[in-house]
Amino acid sequence: MTRMSEARVSRFPVPKLEEMPDDIRERIEAVQEKSGFIPNVFLVLAHRPDEFRAFFAYHDALMEKPGNLTKAEREMIVVATSARNECQYCVIAHGAILRIRAKNPLIADQVATNYRKADLTDRQKAMIDFAMKVSQNAQAVGDADFDVLKGHGFDEEDIWDIAGIAAFFGLSNRMANVTTMRPNDEFYAMGRG
Amino acid sequence: MTRMSEARVSRFPVPKLEEMPDDIRERIEAVQEKSGFIPNVFLVLAHRPDEFRAFFAYHDALMEKPGNLTKAEREMIVVATSARNECQYCVIAHGAILRIRAKNPLIADQVATNYRKADLTDRQKAMIDFAMKVSQNAQAVGDADFDVLKGHGFDEEDIWDIAGIAAFFGLSNRMANVTTMRPNDEFYAMGRG
Amino acid sequence: MTRMSEARVSRFPVPKLEEMPDDIRERIEAVQEKSGFIPNVFLVLAHRPDEFRAFFAYHDALMEKPGNLTKAEREMIVVATSARNECQYCVIAHGAILRIRAKNPLIADQVATNYRKADLTDRQKAMIDFAMKVSQNAQAVGDADFDVLKGHGFDEEDIWDIAGIAAFFGLSNRMANVTTMRPNDEFYAMGRG
Amino acid sequence: MTRMSEARVSRFPVPKLEEMPDDIRERIEAVQEKSGFIPNVFLVLAHRPDEFRAFFAYHDALMEKPGNLTKAEREMIVVATSARNECQYCVIAHGAILRIRAKNPLIADQVATNYRKADLTDRQKAMIDFAMKVSQNAQAVGDADFDVLKGHGFDEEDIWDIAGIAAFFGLSNRMANVTTMRPNDEFYAMGRG
Amino acid sequence: MTRMSEARVSRFPVPKLEEMPDDIRERIEAVQEKSGFIPNVFLVLAHRPDEFRAFFAYHDALMEKPGNLTKAEREMIVVATSARNECQYCVIAHGAILRIRAKNPLIADQVATNYRKADLTDRQKAMIDFAMKVSQNAQAVGDADFDVLKGHGFDEEDIWDIAGIAAFFGLSNRMANVTTMRPNDEFYAMGRG
Amino acid sequence: MTRMSEARVSRFPVPKLEEMPDDIRERIEAVQEKSGFIPNVFLVLAHRPDEFRAFFAYHDALMEKPGNLTKAEREMIVVATSARNECQYCVIAHGAILRIRAKNPLIADQVATNYRKADLTDRQKAMIDFAMKVSQNAQAVGDADFDVLKGHGFDEEDIWDIAGIAAFFGLSNRMANVTTMRPNDEFYAMGRG
Repeated sequence: MTRMSEARVSRFPVPKLEEMPDDIRERIEAVQEKSGFIPNVFLVLAHRPDEFRAFFAYHDALMEKPGNLTKAEREMIVVATSARNECQYCVIAHGAILRIRAKNPLIADQVATNYRKADLTDRQKAMIDFAMKVSQNAQAVGDADFDVLKGHGFDEEDIWDIAGIAAFFGLSNRMANVTTMRPNDEFYAMGRG
Repeated sequence: MTRMSEARVSRFPVPKLEEMPDDIRERIEAVQEKSGFIPNVFLVLAHRPDEFRAFFAYHDALMEKPGNLTKAEREMIVVATSARNECQYCVIAHGAILRIRAKNPLIADQVATNYRKADLTDRQKAMIDFAMKVSQNAQAVGDADFDVLKGHGFDEEDIWDIAGIAAFFGLSNRMANVTTMRPNDEFYAMGRG
Repeated sequence: MTRMSEARVSRFPVPKLEEMPDDIRERIEAVQEKSGFIPNVFLVLAHRPDEFRAFFAYHDALMEKPGNLTKAEREMIVVATSARNECQYCVIAHGAILRIRAKNPLIADQVATNYRKADLTDRQKAMIDFAMKVSQNAQAVGDADFDVLKGHGFDEEDIWDIAGIAAFFGLSNRMANVTTMRPNDEFYAMGRG
Repeated sequence: MTRMSEARVSRFPVPKLEEMPDDIRERIEAVQEKSGFIPNVFLVLAHRPDEFRAFFAYHDALMEKPGNLTKAEREMIVVATSARNECQYCVIAHGAILRIRAKNPLIADQVATNYRKADLTDRQKAMIDFAMKVSQNAQAVGDADFDVLKGHGFDEEDIWDIAGIAAFFGLSNRMANVTTMRPNDEFYAMGRG
Repeated sequence: MTRMSEARVSRFPVPKLEEMPDDIRERIEAVQEKSGFIPNVFLVLAHRPDEFRAFFAYHDALMEKPGNLTKAEREMIVVATSARNECQYCVIAHGAILRIRAKNPLIADQVATNYRKADLTDRQKAMIDFAMKVSQNAQAVGDADFDVLKGHGFDEEDIWDIAGIAAFFGLSNRMANVTTMRPNDEFYAMGRG
Repeated sequence: MTRMSEARVSRFPVPKLEEMPDDIRERIEAVQEKSGFIPNVFLVLAHRPDEFRAFFAYHDALMEKPGNLTKAEREMIVVATSARNECQYCVIAHGAILRIRAKNPLIADQVATNYRKADLTDRQKAMIDFAMKVSQNAQAVGDADFDVLKGHGFDEEDIWDIAGIAAFFGLSNRMANVTTMRPNDEFYAMGRG
């Protein structure tokens, strides 16, 4: 079996840091400084600088914005929908982030495997039910879905947030699967302690 | 039945032009000047300025970039995958653009209904086969899919482009379905000639 | 790309008018006189005269009979179920008829793409919900479905009509897909305004 | 549990023989004389005389016509596709006919449950593979399917026959499920001896 | 077509009675004495003695145990779920047992084809609804399913029994399909009289 | 969120060790001594002693038997098929065992999420492809599947083993989902170091 050191990060070319446009290199170096390593999604998408910029701008607009969803809840949406889309990178990388944000070493594996059986509140399960519908059957979303969420205390802006996260990571899942984006070894054990 | 004048463009609030940030209003005014009307996707997404900016940056990075796919071919991918995702806005708006780009008044309805029976080359059908797999079953994409496309003369960068368009419009389709984004009346007859 | 003049109407042999049995030729000439062209379904099925006669007798028994469903509503059922079955001929030809019957240039494209988001009454959406269940999952139809329709004012005979139309066009969709039945160019722009 | 004598034949009204139009009553009486009982499909559809006439004309055009498919093979198509559509009437009634036509008391139950494991020739399995594709996924039928069948000795007219039978019984399956058409008790044991 | 005498019972080797371990041979001889023939499942699984012993111990633990489900009801679960899994052996063999246990020559074919239309009580249909969910979508089973069953008078132990039978025969269906386990000719006509 | 100490192990009653039959209690105590804790599957199934005995006899017959599949490979089959069945207990408990058996801290999360992208040999991927087909679509298994596996060096007995493991854990997945069997906290971090 293969480990990171010898494994390919992407089936597409990955530029060297020094070849990247300044803004991209600087963003990556900032992440590296904070995390101690460069998450491979940055390297893989740097092959396409304009898409890189749009991707992370979209990511930040959904994941960093203020709102009623906690940061852990946003990661729950990512992990549950990415598991359904069988996206190795997103499940493993965002699983790590979820463990850290939720301060719960068990939650990511539970949500990835079957969120209905996870240690979640009913409100959180309703949130993921809706995210899964957006991810898998958005054409059938309608008033009844909004009513269920409002019954759990979500407002219209929260619902847009849930939908946006599910939709954006659907894009991310597809690009990760097509590029064979490899999760960094570091993610697997993060937040388990 | 309802017509545009009285119909809602989105189930979420739609800001007035004069309330929008300058860069967004200016982009919209430029589109309006060129098209003669404001496509509703601009109004619907303006509710979230940061997502608006990232969305159109991503759109342009894929749809306006140079490359081997013609502009008509990119629109074929949009129409076929959006039809499978039952996205009214994208099928009707991009169907219009496809008719214009391909200078063919029949092609959009053919591709939307069953691209396998459309007036396309074998190369174009292979392109859409792959786009549909990315859209519906990206987890199973692998070397064999790349080999088929290369057999039709696509290179690795073209394959990224196809995947990117299918993935990005998957996001767009989900947001359009959740917001009940309404296609402008103008699109239906455009390019029918 | 190919236009009608050079395109094949069917992958099976298509008889010449003068070779057809009298009753079939006369029916076709009557349609041609009324419409100004011969819809290809008549030519394609004329390859099998006995099936032709049964097909159009069945068609007329459902589409021309008196009843509570308007002619436009019957065409809505055809367009929605045929879109789900990806039948190019039926969506494009009956889309044209729907636009004319409903005197609405937008309705066919809306219903074909996602009838849940179309400019329809709740009663019409319930009608199509049921037609889609008959089309895709008739084995699970039961009392609860009948109750929903009765709650919208449909009676048992109307329900038979809805089911009959969905079932008959399921046959038509399959034959059109197997024969690669080509919609006439004339249908695409009919009734658009 | 209920037996025929007390069981309803249809959830819709069933006319008495003496109330039926002459041509329909005569056809039914002829069947009764030949079979010793009236198969319920005749009674159920007699509620709609025009549809009755078209239905049986279509049936006879496909099932009684000359051609390379044996009568037993046509019934195999009916049983396999009707089982997939979970149509009790068609599986049980045509299962009886298949046993008789094939002079094989085992074949109907085998084909209904899993035709891939039935006592069939490879040619017959290819015939049913195609019939199942027409029944479940006709939109994807294309040249490659025709080539497989031709490799087993079927010609284009045979392929139309297979498709026609699968498509027609798809209609029949849906009407039987919506009407809750009950198979006659007599069918269950026929041809088992 | 092939009959039993010349047909293979399994695609794997089938041991002779005299080669089998004593306990297995004795169990088989006891069945043969009672039934008049050796059901093929015993011969096919005897290829793997340890799995044979565990399989029949599990079978007996579920099918012979006391409890509120009648023996006929347990067989209904087997037939309905095995039909959905397209398992020829289980549908045909347990169909025979169901006819005998229920003293009803019609019930097995009804349940195998579409249990929703079978001569069953509402309680029995609810039982099979749940068994089908366990068989096809167990990951979504939750409190609401338990509540429905309790509303029909089932207790928690009955629910375990239903789930256990559906789950165990899911195993059996898969092994029968992989081994091409052939139902004995004797089963087809049993209990029809 | 809930942790083990306060969380229920099963929605069904769980007997105390001292209430269990001797053979079951002894097996559990032996596991506890070896592992340092009692895996919950033992406690949950002890509610039904006869099923417990059959379950573990079957488990051992497949997982402990000699054969060409390594112990790690058997666990790969368990993890991949259980992930598809969304079985939290099996993915998390057998994921731990897989990490230990394969001496690879990354492999379980990779296989659970998308085995096609995992650090596996082509032979192992073919093994899991087949296991997934047995798990999800066993009715379509046929000679072509056997040929693919033989091309990778598997023999008929290996194929039975793969099928048996996929089929047995399909049973296990269903019972775990119905009982809401909770994975022990200990499993999550095992073998990650």
